[in-house]
Amino acid sequence: MNQDYIQPDNWSIIEEGFDAERVKSSESLFSIGNGAMGQRANFEEHYSGKTFQGSYIAGIYYPDKTKVGWWKNGYPEYFAKVLNAPNWIGIDIEINGENLDLAKCQSVSNFRRELNMKEGIYYRSFNATLANGTEIAVKVQRFLSLDLDEVGVINYEITTLNSDAKIVFKPYVDAGVHNEDANWEEKFWEPISVKHSGNEAFVTARTFKTHFTATTFMQNSILLEGSNLSVAPVSVEETKEKIQFCYQVAVTKGQTTTIQKIGGYTISMNHENTIIGAKNSIATALEIGVKQLTKNQKEAWAKIWEMSDITIDGDVKAQQGIRFNIFQLNQTYLGKDSRLNIGPKGFTGEKYGGSTYWDTEAYCIPFYMATKDQQVARNLLAYRYNQLDKAIENAEKLGFKNGAALYPMVTMNGEECHNEWEITFEEIHRNGAIAFAIYNYYRFTGDYSYIPEKGLEVLIGIARFWHQRSTFSTYRNQYVILGVTGPNEYENNVNNNWYTNYIAKWCIDYTVEQINKIENEYPSDYTRIMNKVKLSQVEISEMKKVADNMYFPYSEEHGVYLQQDGFLDKELITVADLDKSQRPINQKWSWDRILRSPYIKQADTLQGFYFFEDHFTKEQLEKHFDFYEPFTVHESSLSPCVHSIQAAVLGRMEQAYTFYLRTSRLDLDDYNKEVEEGLHITSMAGTWMSIVEGFGGMRVRNNQLHFEPKIPAQWKGYSFKVNFRNAIIKVEVKQEGTNVSIEGNSDVDVFVNGESQLIK
Amino acid sequence: MNQDYIQPDNWSIIEEGFDAERVKSSESLFSIGNGAMGQRANFEEHYSGKTFQGSYIAGIYYPDKTKVGWWKNGYPEYFAKVLNAPNWIGIDIEINGENLDLAKCQSVSNFRRELNMKEGIYYRSFNATLANGTEIAVKVQRFLSLDLDEVGVINYEITTLNSDAKIVFKPYVDAGVHNEDANWEEKFWEPISVKHSGNEAFVTARTFKTHFTATTFMQNSILLEGSNLSVAPVSVEETKEKIQFCYQVAVTKGQTTTIQKIGGYTISMNHENTIIGAKNSIATALEIGVKQLTKNQKEAWAKIWEMSDITIDGDVKAQQGIRFNIFQLNQTYLGKDSRLNIGPKGFTGEKYGGSTYWDTEAYCIPFYMATKDQQVARNLLAYRYNQLDKAIENAEKLGFKNGAALYPMVTMNGEECHNEWEITFEEIHRNGAIAFAIYNYYRFTGDYSYIPEKGLEVLIGIARFWHQRSTFSTYRNQYVILGVTGPNEYENNVNNNWYTNYIAKWCIDYTVEQINKIENEYPSDYTRIMNKVKLSQVEISEMKKVADNMYFPYSEEHGVYLQQDGFLDKELITVADLDKSQRPINQKWSWDRILRSPYIKQADTLQGFYFFEDHFTKEQLEKHFDFYEPFTVHESSLSPCVHSIQAAVLGRMEQAYTFYLRTSRLDLDDYNKEVEEGLHITSMAGTWMSIVEGFGGMRVRNNQLHFEPKIPAQWKGYSFKVNFRNAIIKVEVKQEGTNVSIEGNSDVDVFVNGESQLIK
Repeated sequence: MNQDYIQPDNWSIIEEGFDAERVKSSESLFSIGNGAMGQRANFEEHYSGKTFQGSYIAGIYYPDKTKVGWWKNGYPEYFAKVLNAPNWIGIDIEINGENLDLAKCQSVSNFRRELNMKEGIYYRSFNATLANGTEIAVKVQRFLSLDLDEVGVINYEITTLNSDAKIVFKPYVDAGVHNEDANWEEKFWEPISVKHSGNEAFVTARTFKTHFTATTFMQNSILLEGSNLSVAPVSVEETKEKIQFCYQVAVTKGQTTTIQKIGGYTISMNHENTIIGAKNSIATALEIGVKQLTKNQKEAWAKIWEMSDITIDGDVKAQQGIRFNIFQLNQTYLGKDSRLNIGPKGFTGEKYGGSTYWDTEAYCIPFYMATKDQQVARNLLAYRYNQLDKAIENAEKLGFKNGAALYPMVTMNGEECHNEWEITFEEIHRNGAIAFAIYNYYRFTGDYSYIPEKGLEVLIGIARFWHQRSTFSTYRNQYVILGVTGPNEYENNVNNNWYTNYIAKWCIDYTVEQINKIENEYPSDYTRIMNKVKLSQVEISEMKKVADNMYFPYSEEHGVYLQQDGFLDKELITVADLDKSQRPINQKWSWDRILRSPYIKQADTLQGFYFFEDHFTKEQLEKHFDFYEPFTVHESSLSPCVHSIQAAVLGRMEQAYTFYLRTSRLDLDDYNKEVEEGLHITSMAGTWMSIVEGFGGMRVRNNQLHFEPKIPAQWKGYSFKVNFRNAIIKVEVKQEGTNVSIEGNSDVDVFVNGESQLIK
Repeated sequence: MNQDYIQPDNWSIIEEGFDAERVKSSESLFSIGNGAMGQRANFEEHYSGKTFQGSYIAGIYYPDKTKVGWWKNGYPEYFAKVLNAPNWIGIDIEINGENLDLAKCQSVSNFRRELNMKEGIYYRSFNATLANGTEIAVKVQRFLSLDLDEVGVINYEITTLNSDAKIVFKPYVDAGVHNEDANWEEKFWEPISVKHSGNEAFVTARTFKTHFTATTFMQNSILLEGSNLSVAPVSVEETKEKIQFCYQVAVTKGQTTTIQKIGGYTISMNHENTIIGAKNSIATALEIGVKQLTKNQKEAWAKIWEMSDITIDGDVKAQQGIRFNIFQLNQTYLGKDSRLNIGPKGFTGEKYGGSTYWDTEAYCIPFYMATKDQQVARNLLAYRYNQLDKAIENAEKLGFKNGAALYPMVTMNGEECHNEWEITFEEIHRNGAIAFAIYNYYRFTGDYSYIPEKGLEVLIGIARFWHQRSTFSTYRNQYVILGVTGPNEYENNVNNNWYTNYIAKWCIDYTVEQINKIENEYPSDYTRIMNKVKLSQVEISEMKKVADNMYFPYSEEHGVYLQQDGFLDKELITVADLDKSQRPINQKWSWDRILRSPYIKQADTLQGFYFFEDHFTKEQLEKHFDFYEPFTVHESSLSPCVHSIQAAVLGRMEQAYTFYLRTSRLDLDDYNKEVEEGLHITSMAGTWMSIVEGFGGMRVRNNQLHFEPKIPAQWKGYSFKVNFRNAIIKVEVKQEGTNVSIEGNSDVDVFVNGESQLIK
């Protein structure tokens, strides 16, 4: 474990004491978001210490010009980046003529942050003695409204402790921001207009190239001892990209003055006129009032928790970890808008261009399917359907044709946002997860309608890709897939990665099955789709030939499928026998050494066993787990969860628990020493899976929901709920036994350890 | 063939007629150099059309900050670039108040360039009608002195054709230059001082970071009708990085006025005070005089040609091609200075950071060994010896230890200058060519002394690398080399590239042999070296175990060694069956498609058969040639020569001839559509090999020189000379038969078709 300053608490993330070295980490950990926007926990007041400023608006991106050492044909020229958005939270503070800056105070005491996950509110408080000797107490409360998702609220209270004081609040909105990861140090926002009226201000800016317009707005009220002073700014400073109001309040010793700032964004994706939109947002917020908004916020979060909470009894750190994961997932994506997706850093940092990885399909969809309305998962699927044309274009760039689709490794608008050939061009297994998610959605929800409506076109594009991407090896008299990178990115350009070959075959088989089913059961959809995609029987049977004759590397000696053709040529020294000083290998070793080592970044063959568990016996799983896990370094945040689930299946609860802890507190304890850059959002869904699918043993088979609950020795009990086909199933597991209750749809078949829990 | 404007001529490269679209190509083709400096054939007078300005000083480089999309451990942070040097050739011209600019004249006629390779002088002439109606005739002559290698001479003559005129010559030296390939648009030169006195001027500048100081100088004389006017400049313009003189001459219609400009560089690698050095250079040049310098230039080139010329009778284009290649090699590197090497673009362009590739050892050394004093080849070997410490450091960065050396893929000062992991970290076969060159040098020259003196340390470093880089495969019960890129860069990160494994084994074997020999025959060197490198008998025997148990992929079915483990898995469609529209594949295909294709960029397995021809039978060569050549696209300039030699060995003269033409006129006919960027210097040595080793069949075996001459049907005859152990052997091959004459050392054993040519 690398950091240990977060206080254990069932419902809150708490930091106590001010440490400048922790500011950037805490900015990540205390981030807030409401699905539509979000921001790092930057201070409102100016801070001259080390900080990583970041505010983000969902769906707003900038295509940065690609930077590479050596260009390769097929690289994208531009590359969508998560965009640091204009700042609306800023409030400069002057006390008796001195700027409040925590990096420059004589002393800071009682510094405390609390991210109350139950309420969805972020609190910060501290006492400070300024250089001029004035002592103050500050309490800040901030949230991004779930109800009004364009609106955030800050309540910033200052109490003077040792003297009367003149307090100046200088709230601002500022579009003069930049991305730390900009390739060419360019600015991404072009200021359009700055307007203000009374206590309201509006900065409108447009992204270069993509031409998203955003109005960043604020409305300010000044209170003294809780009463609104109804004052206007005494002065206004304005540049072409920033506007700042100045309010002055004279307070006597012990008095409290407050600025309430309502702010946020209205964007051209949602408004014809973003300024009018912003004015309406302010008006609505003011009408409801800060007090009621705060109450609504708590209620909205209570509603989310009602369905998605997981309780853990007897292990505060584990409880805090899982709630942090669930909270962050909900802050990032609420599933209302099929134009959006789940970025790997959510609203907590810039790292990684683009927002959508195969993480969404492989790791996130199960969480959203089980804890929200099925429309949410459907929106995530539709996101890919809406980008099918771009995926076909993307495949064409790489020489494929006739409607073959290769979804990008990373994307924002359907275009590829990555440029390492071994990933961009070769980590093609991502296509498989996108098809698998369609199957998985139907399996869980029973809603077949998505497939004739949209899914089949996606499946056909993907199946065509696999068909064309496979080549016939005369030598093996079978089809092979050469030159790929599997989920284990510590091997590049390998031949016959078992996972890739397996999912390729599965995609073709599943697609052909769906074609046949839709031909019989949805004839008008069938006609519409076939007219569009022009898929002939000849093409189908050629496709099928590839699937039927796919090669899978296998070792008779070890009785396992081989991760790739050359795996056994490696020096098979397990991680246990690797000197600790060599780890993490991605920081200690050059790339060639990593590639020729047997070390596995994240589940690869085992990822296949996770997706297709039912295709194999438990003995096969055990054999493969015992062969591959000892070489796995789990240097991807997506690794421990799959292993935790499989360890649980194999009844190895100690190991399952260890993996679980590693995944659930990855960021809180900063295992990877990089939490400053933002949180690992998508892997958080894996943590949820570790409990529900791992410990809870939840599986859907033949339209039935099965549980085989197990419990780590460290816990007294745990509980979770899933929404299965409009039934709410609550599973409470204790050392003594399991209790399952079912509400709603009484037609569902639920089994615990093979025993029916029928309530019909 | 892509361009056809160069006039066929036995001794000159000639362009006739002005075409703005050809300017950049001609700037490359008419480049001049003298081993110490060189420049593209940029016009002296200002030219506002498309041009690529380039002057270069041997050994002067700049470590540009590396630019990559995704950083990998082990990449060099900086990266030596060939540096565009200050300009000393510039002469702005004004005629009757109008600037002479070929892009803006009313008309340009009789434009002609001639690079006279016999003389080493570049001529340019044209008539022009300026916008103001003045008609002039211009004749320019330029050369870089072989005798005074810091000095160049320009003789620029203007004759007015239709009126009297005021002619203004404005010669300058300018350090305000930049590199077109700068990663971050930074300047690389920092101006230090600008000085002038009389007709002489000096701009001193220093490279940032590397702190090479160069004084760029000029001395000007103005002539009228051939008589020196002994005038001083009428004015001087000076900035901190540039100085420009202004001379005015009034001429009457038909009169000729001339500026003679002596210029060049003195650098801190050679002078304590570069300004004093520059003054001395000017004084020496003036003392000799332009006329005599010109005469000396022709004589110096005559001397070079005396030894290195190859004549071809009955095929002007082939004759012009081979002379162009020999001329450029001599312009680039004369072997006087072991700090220098043979850059892939010589003094003709910026492309490729660094200057030294394995090209030097694999392709260039044979040419220099056979056409120059053996000291030249020895200097090329010493270059690597001098960089051994850096090669050891380089290997350490990649996790090797204990004196293992990995020479960089590209370098200027011993540090790596490349940053694609699949090349930088994996194209490690380069280490083998460096060892092979040591063997090759001894084989050809008989000079063993280099090995105890310097070579053995290099061999030990290389052998240690191969020892550590090989891993034991339990599965194969043999040593394997995983994750490499062979000479065929169209496969990356493959396992057991046969060429790499073969040369690795050979390096270890050869090193151990030399250790034993030196222990017996050079005991004091042995003691000195062993004390330094601390090589134990245990390490030697472990090394030997790797060599003795190296795995070589082999196909029983095809009877050939496999290029790499996975080669037979590919779709083996020959180049002949590949649609022409798909070529060149490196421009038409994405990288993944290239990698999974069977197409070979340049000799790979066949490169091994070239180096180790004696290890295999002719039948084996034939089998491998027939297996691999049909998949070879020859998209590297280094490819055709090896294939030409092997086709000749196999008696396939038509094929050998086709390959020969492709290599010898690669740049003149611009096969690769990139001659604008500079010439392919190192492959030019391959052209020489095609004739001497291919058609001439020259081989050294057991200290004897053997020829098995063959002649293409297209030629009446050809001849070449080689310097073998102080004997000059001239080989004249005609359709009727071969004549060999030997001068000098009469102890050498020369055989033609197995028949001794003893002159003892």
